[in-house]
Amino acid sequence: MEQRIIDSIEKIVGKDGYSTKPADLYTYGFDASIFHKTPEIVIQPRSTEEVSEIMKIANREKIPVVARGAGTGLCGSAVPIKGGIVMAMQRMNKVKKVSVADLWVDIEPGINYNDLNEVLAKYGFFFPPAPGSAEACHIGGMVALNASGMKAVKYGATRDYVLGLTFVKADGEIVRAGTRTVKDASGYQLARLMCGSEGTLGIITEITLKLTTKPKKSAYCLCAFNNIHDAGSCIAALIAKPMIPASCEMMDSISIKAVNKARGNPLPACEALCIFEADGETDEVVSRDLKIIEEIAKSTGAISVTPSYDQKQIDAWTDARKSILAALSALMPGYTSVSLADDMGVPISKVPAAVKAFQDIAAKYDVTIATYGHAGDGNLHTKMLVQPSNADMWERGVKATDEIFDVCIDLGGTVTGEHGVGIAKAPKYMRERASELSSIIAIKKAMDPNNILNPGKLEQWEGSILANLRYPCKEYM
Amino acid sequence: MEQRIIDSIEKIVGKDGYSTKPADLYTYGFDASIFHKTPEIVIQPRSTEEVSEIMKIANREKIPVVARGAGTGLCGSAVPIKGGIVMAMQRMNKVKKVSVADLWVDIEPGINYNDLNEVLAKYGFFFPPAPGSAEACHIGGMVALNASGMKAVKYGATRDYVLGLTFVKADGEIVRAGTRTVKDASGYQLARLMCGSEGTLGIITEITLKLTTKPKKSAYCLCAFNNIHDAGSCIAALIAKPMIPASCEMMDSISIKAVNKARGNPLPACEALCIFEADGETDEVVSRDLKIIEEIAKSTGAISVTPSYDQKQIDAWTDARKSILAALSALMPGYTSVSLADDMGVPISKVPAAVKAFQDIAAKYDVTIATYGHAGDGNLHTKMLVQPSNADMWERGVKATDEIFDVCIDLGGTVTGEHGVGIAKAPKYMRERASELSSIIAIKKAMDPNNILNPGKLEQWEGSILANLRYPCKEYM
Repeated sequence: MEQRIIDSIEKIVGKDGYSTKPADLYTYGFDASIFHKTPEIVIQPRSTEEVSEIMKIANREKIPVVARGAGTGLCGSAVPIKGGIVMAMQRMNKVKKVSVADLWVDIEPGINYNDLNEVLAKYGFFFPPAPGSAEACHIGGMVALNASGMKAVKYGATRDYVLGLTFVKADGEIVRAGTRTVKDASGYQLARLMCGSEGTLGIITEITLKLTTKPKKSAYCLCAFNNIHDAGSCIAALIAKPMIPASCEMMDSISIKAVNKARGNPLPACEALCIFEADGETDEVVSRDLKIIEEIAKSTGAISVTPSYDQKQIDAWTDARKSILAALSALMPGYTSVSLADDMGVPISKVPAAVKAFQDIAAKYDVTIATYGHAGDGNLHTKMLVQPSNADMWERGVKATDEIFDVCIDLGGTVTGEHGVGIAKAPKYMRERASELSSIIAIKKAMDPNNILNPGKLEQWEGSILANLRYPCKEYM
Repeated sequence: MEQRIIDSIEKIVGKDGYSTKPADLYTYGFDASIFHKTPEIVIQPRSTEEVSEIMKIANREKIPVVARGAGTGLCGSAVPIKGGIVMAMQRMNKVKKVSVADLWVDIEPGINYNDLNEVLAKYGFFFPPAPGSAEACHIGGMVALNASGMKAVKYGATRDYVLGLTFVKADGEIVRAGTRTVKDASGYQLARLMCGSEGTLGIITEITLKLTTKPKKSAYCLCAFNNIHDAGSCIAALIAKPMIPASCEMMDSISIKAVNKARGNPLPACEALCIFEADGETDEVVSRDLKIIEEIAKSTGAISVTPSYDQKQIDAWTDARKSILAALSALMPGYTSVSLADDMGVPISKVPAAVKAFQDIAAKYDVTIATYGHAGDGNLHTKMLVQPSNADMWERGVKATDEIFDVCIDLGGTVTGEHGVGIAKAPKYMRERASELSSIIAIKKAMDPNNILNPGKLEQWEGSILANLRYPCKEYM
């Protein structure tokens, strides 16, 4: 990057507001995905006004700008594949106001999910989406990717809580979108449009979230099955009852083996399991729902059903579930667990068919694929075990990924359930949203005519998804 | 309209698919607002494909097109102020599929709200927004205006249930937006953008709504107060508890008088009242919440608190509340109740201040204003009593309306809580959303370059809102 541009950036954010040190640039070229690309500069703004001034320079000089939260994304949404500026938002991490009587909270994008919920809990509220990365992720990233997690089956995703937000457009204009009222009717819902746009329409600098009361009681039930098909059938039968659990996690045999090996057998040894959560205002409601879960699990072939109101037991199950990704990397020596087809959504009734198809595809391409996820809303994760330097294995993995995504689309599903599109899913996102592409392209051009905001992503994707691989695979470095 | 254009429209929808009869054109120039404008042709399409073919003609010939549901809108959103085509969607009124196990329903836009809920109730689900026009309104109109009603305080507005939809762009392109999965993460949420765009971005021809389980138990509590300020304080205290009621209706003394006069005193004679609803899975939850409501009502000055589990009593209260609009027209001989500043949203804690301000504004301009609404989410309705042919009174009414809207914006609220923008609110919508205007204009141009979709509305508004008055006021005819 030319020195004159760096100088003008320094005038805005100060000496300690940016870095061009190789170590920093290298570090900020990662997120939690399999991709990496080194930017030219990392900027850590402190205010909406600083972001606005930087965007004016970037727009004038046509420099790519990629906003970055905690870097917990699994798809490469924050990887700066066109270089340029990484706008790292972690210094904008304040809770600006909790308006209890008006049911909203104003925050900066850099605040962590658990930290926000700690603040909200004092007032009896919570922000429910509960991503797997709750300990680390930033709300700004959650909004940019419309993230969600375990509790989305009952409580919805991030988009369902965004009342309004402030964003900076490509040209530096500061826009306050939406309202701070619980309800607002018509007009273009720009706040909802921004939610999920992955930094391609603007840089989010402030967010107003709707407050929701936290249910007072909760309990869990672990159900073991002889095969993943029965587990999927159990979930579909429960939803069709209808009984919407507060969360509903499914694990296949590979995930179970990996966790039991890495963590000292916190889970029963079985071919498949579901961990259900029931919540509500009273013990009566929770126990009634837990009984419904037990009955349906037994009627759909559960070999063991273990309800629990004991927080220690519940924490052990939850920790086990959350440890899958890391545990898989320790399952087979020389193999690492990678996010390729990591996050699909299918119609709930299609979960058994989808999981069966994933297994067939894994066999066809001779790759090891673990399947788990928030199956209560049809959201399935797969993780592939690959030898990082083995190009042939990567290529088989990409072929398997293609087929997994195609299966999900053909089942009426989506390639992106909660982790976003980023790089890994961009080609299939364009297939899934083919009917929307002309509108998407028109809106992007209208909002970012110089195409500087996270360019090359979403509908702009071209080439092979292995082009920016972070692993030491010489064919793709 | 030129005969050659009418002929080409007839080729698409057939002889019985359109009308240019003066009586039909006159009729379809109304909605439930104070506005009227006669279109050139009324078309009643039967399919997405017919809408697409008509849009190709309209786009080529640059003819304005206004989509119309049941015409229950109170702001003029469906009034064709630039003439042209009214696209009346009532023939597209099928429930296409209820997918219970996958938690969605596919419908055409012309189905009525109550009819849809009758279908969903069979499966234990419901579509909660509950507009006041539930008996008559169409879901398509609810989506176009992001409508809601009594239950929005707990269950949200229409936008919170739209998983996907099919719409026809200005150029006739058919777009399927969103998904049929409960969750989908990133990408531009076109379905959410369409929701609330009031027919300015496309014609909605199919809608996929998320299914929600219907709570099994419900009860009500009517609380009477000596003044509207105490009623507002009661609501704010309840929300801050936090305790989110299933619905929360407030009525001022004029509304109460009007209803009691017109309907034989179904309500206690008092200066202000609130009708709260508590719902849940068990009687225990409902009675616990009802007790909280009673305590807080008494502590905030309620002069009487009447809980009820009796459906007949509850229906009487609900009918009374729903009859306000009609009852007000019967309150003062020679006066009719009109929707000018009919639907605002303010922060919940600001409800008392807002109502006080409305009363001062009514006194200042010597007009009679009734205030009521779903105050639990800060949504307030005012109705003005005017002599329809009295130009001076209309002008004072418009001045009062301006000030009411300004008060709500200045309190951090919105001019459109649930009824949409249409004509009545367009000038103040432009003030409220000033920061969003450049983006709104850019998106509208990108999606509708010839500006044929409901032109002259939202950000395009110019002139006096009295220009298209439906009443026999010669100064404005």
